[in-house]
Amino acid sequence: MDFTFDAISADEHERAQAVYTPFTQAIRDLIDAAVRTGVDGQTIEQAQHAIEAVTATLTVAEQDGTRTLRHEGTGRPIAWGNPVVGGRNAIAPPLDIQYTDRGCWAEFDLGAAYEGPPGWVHGGMCALVLDHILGEVASDQLSKPFFTGTLTCKYLRGTPLGRLRAEARLDRVDGIKAYAHGHISDTEGITVEADGVFIMPAWARDQR
Amino acid sequence: MDFTFDAISADEHERAQAVYTPFTQAIRDLIDAAVRTGVDGQTIEQAQHAIEAVTATLTVAEQDGTRTLRHEGTGRPIAWGNPVVGGRNAIAPPLDIQYTDRGCWAEFDLGAAYEGPPGWVHGGMCALVLDHILGEVASDQLSKPFFTGTLTCKYLRGTPLGRLRAEARLDRVDGIKAYAHGHISDTEGITVEADGVFIMPAWARDQR
Repeated sequence: MDFTFDAISADEHERAQAVYTPFTQAIRDLIDAAVRTGVDGQTIEQAQHAIEAVTATLTVAEQDGTRTLRHEGTGRPIAWGNPVVGGRNAIAPPLDIQYTDRGCWAEFDLGAAYEGPPGWVHGGMCALVLDHILGEVASDQLSKPFFTGTLTCKYLRGTPLGRLRAEARLDRVDGIKAYAHGHISDTEGITVEADGVFIMPAWARDQR
Repeated sequence: MDFTFDAISADEHERAQAVYTPFTQAIRDLIDAAVRTGVDGQTIEQAQHAIEAVTATLTVAEQDGTRTLRHEGTGRPIAWGNPVVGGRNAIAPPLDIQYTDRGCWAEFDLGAAYEGPPGWVHGGMCALVLDHILGEVASDQLSKPFFTGTLTCKYLRGTPLGRLRAEARLDRVDGIKAYAHGHISDTEGITVEADGVFIMPAWARDQR
């Protein structure tokens, strides 16, 4: 596995963000509209062909190796393609993670495309968010190769669609293992708690 | 929470599937192309405006209450909007789940939009898939209100992007609790194992 990402300057990153942020948001809005639309079959079919035409304009050039870059200014990776935080991935809500001393947090919205039971966030989506945010603190903002070893999620009650908050804290690092804890909450309090053990794989241990 | 879904006839379902399946696939292809494209900023901006125009044609009519319908023939819910199996949700890979005596399985592909570390599936995506497939067996194919109480995922090794298989089995139902077990595998064997306890909420217990 290659953890030596290509670097991108602060200026380049800012210019790219200005292009990709509204573009990716447009795709997120399309996903949401597609889940909720009640238009007739002919309109759906026309939309399909229009989308296929757009995709054709994008696939003429690929840059498969640059889904993750390193920001020259901060030295941190920019996980553009990531399904939780990625600014170029329409699957990502995305979470805009804020870092504190030994932890991090993010506030975000989950709409219709993240629904499990009617009105509630899919339980697995909570697990996806929690795995990621615990992984952020375990891996020092994705800069160290610590990968999920065990993830345990306890669902205290349903998580409603809408505005949510996720938080994580690094408990301790013990050699090749990092222990993290976190939760998702709504305005009424915690809905899901998680504990994670993250492990540095064998190939990375010699490089420490 | 309303578990009394509107019914849809087998014919209507087949007609709707014929419209929504290629439409949703077109959006999945767009998401993938957007993560991987290397085209210039002007092309991205044109794509953005074209996508916004498509979305505008979809939002003129909504049907928010019908993200989940009940199939008249089978009596089972059709979770069209679901982020793991939903035929109308471009976030879903989707999993086409096959049911056996006390279990279920699905084979599916995860591409660039589901990536965590370079070349590997995001650990949280594995948790999302496992939560869903364990929930399928715990809830008798989503027909009974059993929701995730605890989910534990053990990551044995990295899960590569590409073709994968997920399996789940119902261990036992003990009153308001259902216990399920499952895993994700690639061609070399199991990559992630999961155990889940699913709970029938208080509001549903009186209706048994």
